[in-house]
Amino acid sequence: MRKFPAPIHNAIAALGKLPGVGPKTALRYAFALLRLQRGELELVAKSLDALKFVTTCDRCFTYAEAKICDICRDPKRDPKLLCIVAEARDIATLEATGIFHGLYLVLGGVLNPVDGYTPDKLNVKELQDRLNLDREIKEVILAFSPDVHGETTILYLSRMLKALGKKTTRLARGLPMGADIEYADEVTLASALAGRSET
Amino acid sequence: MRKFPAPIHNAIAALGKLPGVGPKTALRYAFALLRLQRGELELVAKSLDALKFVTTCDRCFTYAEAKICDICRDPKRDPKLLCIVAEARDIATLEATGIFHGLYLVLGGVLNPVDGYTPDKLNVKELQDRLNLDREIKEVILAFSPDVHGETTILYLSRMLKALGKKTTRLARGLPMGADIEYADEVTLASALAGRSET
Repeated sequence: MRKFPAPIHNAIAALGKLPGVGPKTALRYAFALLRLQRGELELVAKSLDALKFVTTCDRCFTYAEAKICDICRDPKRDPKLLCIVAEARDIATLEATGIFHGLYLVLGGVLNPVDGYTPDKLNVKELQDRLNLDREIKEVILAFSPDVHGETTILYLSRMLKALGKKTTRLARGLPMGADIEYADEVTLASALAGRSET
Repeated sequence: MRKFPAPIHNAIAALGKLPGVGPKTALRYAFALLRLQRGELELVAKSLDALKFVTTCDRCFTYAEAKICDICRDPKRDPKLLCIVAEARDIATLEATGIFHGLYLVLGGVLNPVDGYTPDKLNVKELQDRLNLDREIKEVILAFSPDVHGETTILYLSRMLKALGKKTTRLARGLPMGADIEYADEVTLASALAGRSET
């Protein structure tokens, strides 16, 4: 990758910071950006720079522009339901369903002691404080992925929440849309059976 | 993807301009950038913005910071050899071999009349002018990919160059490193046989 002008080298290095982007992809991205109109390129750079103005909501710890995010401020949201998610981006996925109208709290990850994610590294204390202060909350939904670390987190939090006397639920496990029973694993199928509903 | 702060929306839109990057990947990239230190994020944005200072070399049409690029200005390069490449990024690939010490000319694409790449859209006239002016050039290497459009371009240029009385060569076709003869296609194998060398 020698003999390129310094700005191209620097752009390749910058783009290489993106997850899963190696030198070849970074090079491809840099050349695509070179082909943009000057104004368009400046807009791309400015948009990325503006990410520095994004802060964290004081109530739910998701990304926000103000001290309190749009969802936490929205009077139409149901304050009786609190949904706990691992990462801020999970909120976007849940919001896309259009079904949930409660509030959120971002835990900041899932329990994974090997990688250093112990309860004190996550917003567990903040969740406890919120439940102690906010008496309106009737149900806490634990919206974690049903994998090893997600299950550990659900187990840990549900014990804690039950001790606080809160109704605690988790997302249903079952067959995903379009799945084939023939290829479903037994744990999923067992969950689908146990959670069967009347037609 | 609702309910994100405006800067995140804008960054996702900006990152979506990169080739092969859809909304999900752009979201992933934006969240990765959010996790960077403020200074690091500013450096990324600045590096991309600085791409606007990249211009094109007047002699070889590759990307350059000055009017004449580093390779064209380098007195150690052999002015008797001129290598024609389709795109500026091919120069990086050829330079990485460390074998070629001549000069380059970027054609700006390959002949592909269906997509509008006719000789007048490429630097064909510029190549002719250069060969007419620059009497030092003894050999022109046509370094195009051996696919339909690359072969068409090689055919077209080699006719033109021979009419100008220039020695014209092309990259060898043969088995790539690590290839298995059993799975080689017959055109490649025929080229490898025809181009066999003494051991």
